[in-house]
Amino acid sequence: MIQAIDRAAKVLELLQGSRHLGITDLATALQLPPSTVHGIVASLREHGLVAKERGGQRYMLGPTLLKLSSVYLDSLDVRARALRWTQDLARRTGMAVRLGAPHFAEVLVIHHVLRPDDSPQMLETGAALPAHASAMGKVLLAYDLGFQRAVFAEPLPSLTGDTVTDASALAAALPTVAEHGFAIETDEAVLGESSLASPVADARGDIVAAVAVVFPSADGPAPDAALHALRDTARNISRELGATAWPPRIAPADD
Amino acid sequence: MIQAIDRAAKVLELLQGSRHLGITDLATALQLPPSTVHGIVASLREHGLVAKERGGQRYMLGPTLLKLSSVYLDSLDVRARALRWTQDLARRTGMAVRLGAPHFAEVLVIHHVLRPDDSPQMLETGAALPAHASAMGKVLLAYDLGFQRAVFAEPLPSLTGDTVTDASALAAALPTVAEHGFAIETDEAVLGESSLASPVADARGDIVAAVAVVFPSADGPAPDAALHALRDTARNISRELGATAWPPRIAPADD
Repeated sequence: MIQAIDRAAKVLELLQGSRHLGITDLATALQLPPSTVHGIVASLREHGLVAKERGGQRYMLGPTLLKLSSVYLDSLDVRARALRWTQDLARRTGMAVRLGAPHFAEVLVIHHVLRPDDSPQMLETGAALPAHASAMGKVLLAYDLGFQRAVFAEPLPSLTGDTVTDASALAAALPTVAEHGFAIETDEAVLGESSLASPVADARGDIVAAVAVVFPSADGPAPDAALHALRDTARNISRELGATAWPPRIAPADD
Repeated sequence: MIQAIDRAAKVLELLQGSRHLGITDLATALQLPPSTVHGIVASLREHGLVAKERGGQRYMLGPTLLKLSSVYLDSLDVRARALRWTQDLARRTGMAVRLGAPHFAEVLVIHHVLRPDDSPQMLETGAALPAHASAMGKVLLAYDLGFQRAVFAEPLPSLTGDTVTDASALAAALPTVAEHGFAIETDEAVLGESSLASPVADARGDIVAAVAVVFPSADGPAPDAALHALRDTARNISRELGATAWPPRIAPADD
C-alpha cells in the first residue's frame, strides 16, 4: 500500500460522506498536519478528482469522477448484456428493475430501469444498498463466500423494524436462496418497499451480479409471473455472459 | 503535486482510455518500472478505484468510482436546481436536453433528459463533449475566459466536415454568443445532430453551466419557440441559483 494513494483515497471517501469539507476538517479526520492534507488535495484537484467550492474554501468531489464512472459503467460486460433484458423485465412486470454487484460489504446498483408508469422516480445507479437488507444482497451472500465474509465482519444495522440484524438467522436462510435461485425482501431496507432478486452467472459459473424487481409492499407478495420473469431474465443475462449452468455455483472466498 | 497521487490519477486516466490494461502496458505508458506500477495499482484496488478483470491479469476502473460519482452528481447545486426545469424544457420542445459544465478543455454532461418520444436513447450523463464543436461549449467559451484559454491551448480536431477548427474564426463568433445569450451548432460534432445552448449563472453572476436542446439537423433550424423555451430555462435555473443578472458576466481567467 502506497501511503500517499491510501490517504488520497481516504480524502475522496471523506468528501463522499460530507460533500463539503475544509482542509482543517480533513486534517482532523485523517489525523495529519494541514500542510500534508493541503498537498493531497492540491494533487487531486490537479486531476479534477476534487474541486474547490465556488467562492469558498471548502472542497468537494470533482467532475473527473463522473467521467471515470461513465467509462466504468460502459466497460461492465454484465451491464451491457443486461440492458435489453432488464428493460424487458420492467415492461413484463410493471416493476422497477435493479442490477447490482458486490462492492466491499454493500450492493452497488450498476443499472436501474424505472418502473414503467411515468411516476416521478430517481435514478438509483451508483446507490449502495445494504447487503443484509436487500434481496440482491441476500442472493450475493448465498453464492459468494468472500462477500459473506465482508458483510458478516461488521454488525448488521437495523434500518426498519423488519431488518434482520442477526447474522446467524440471515446465514441460516442462505442455503434456501442458493437452492431456489432467488431471495425475497419485504420492508427490510425501506418501509413500504419489497424486492425479489436472482443471481447472474458468468462463463466460469461464478456469480457476478444480482438482478431484482422492486415493488410496493402494499401490493402484497410478488405474483408467480413476476418471479418467473425475473428468473428468466437472470438466466438469459447469464447465458449471454457465457454461463452454461444456472443458478451459479457457490464461489469460495479469495484469500 | 505529490508524485504518487499524480501517478495514481494517470493510471485511472489510462484505464479510462483503454479499459483493460496489464501492468506492463501501464508501466510502458507511464515509463515506470513494473514493480512501481504494481504498487500503485494494488493501492487503488484496495479502495475499489481499480478492479482486476475476472479470470485474467488485466485491470480496469473500479466500482468505487461509480459510488463517488453518484455523490458528486447529488452534490451539484446547479444540477439539483435544473432537474425540474430541464424536464419541463424537454416536454415543451420535444427535444433532448443536456446540462453541461466545463471540465478542463471539454464539456462534461452532468444531466441529460431523453427526448420524450420513447425512442431508444443512451443516457449521456458523464459523456465529455468537444468544447469547440458543441453549442454548450461555445456558450462556456463565450463567458469563461479560463475555459477559453484551456480549449484554445491545443489544436481543435475536426470531427465532421462541418467542425470549425480555426480558433480565430471560433473566437470571432463568441462576442455575438455573449451578447445574445445563446449559441448554435449544426453537424459540428456529430453528423445529423444540432444543438442550441444558453448559459446558467450563479449568485455571483458567473457562468457555472450551459443548458442545451439537441435535435436532428434534418428538422431544420430550431423554431423560435424552442429558443425562447431554452432561454427561459437557463434564466429560471440561474434565478434559483441566486443570479440577479442574466446572461452572466464574462468571467476572467484565474491565474
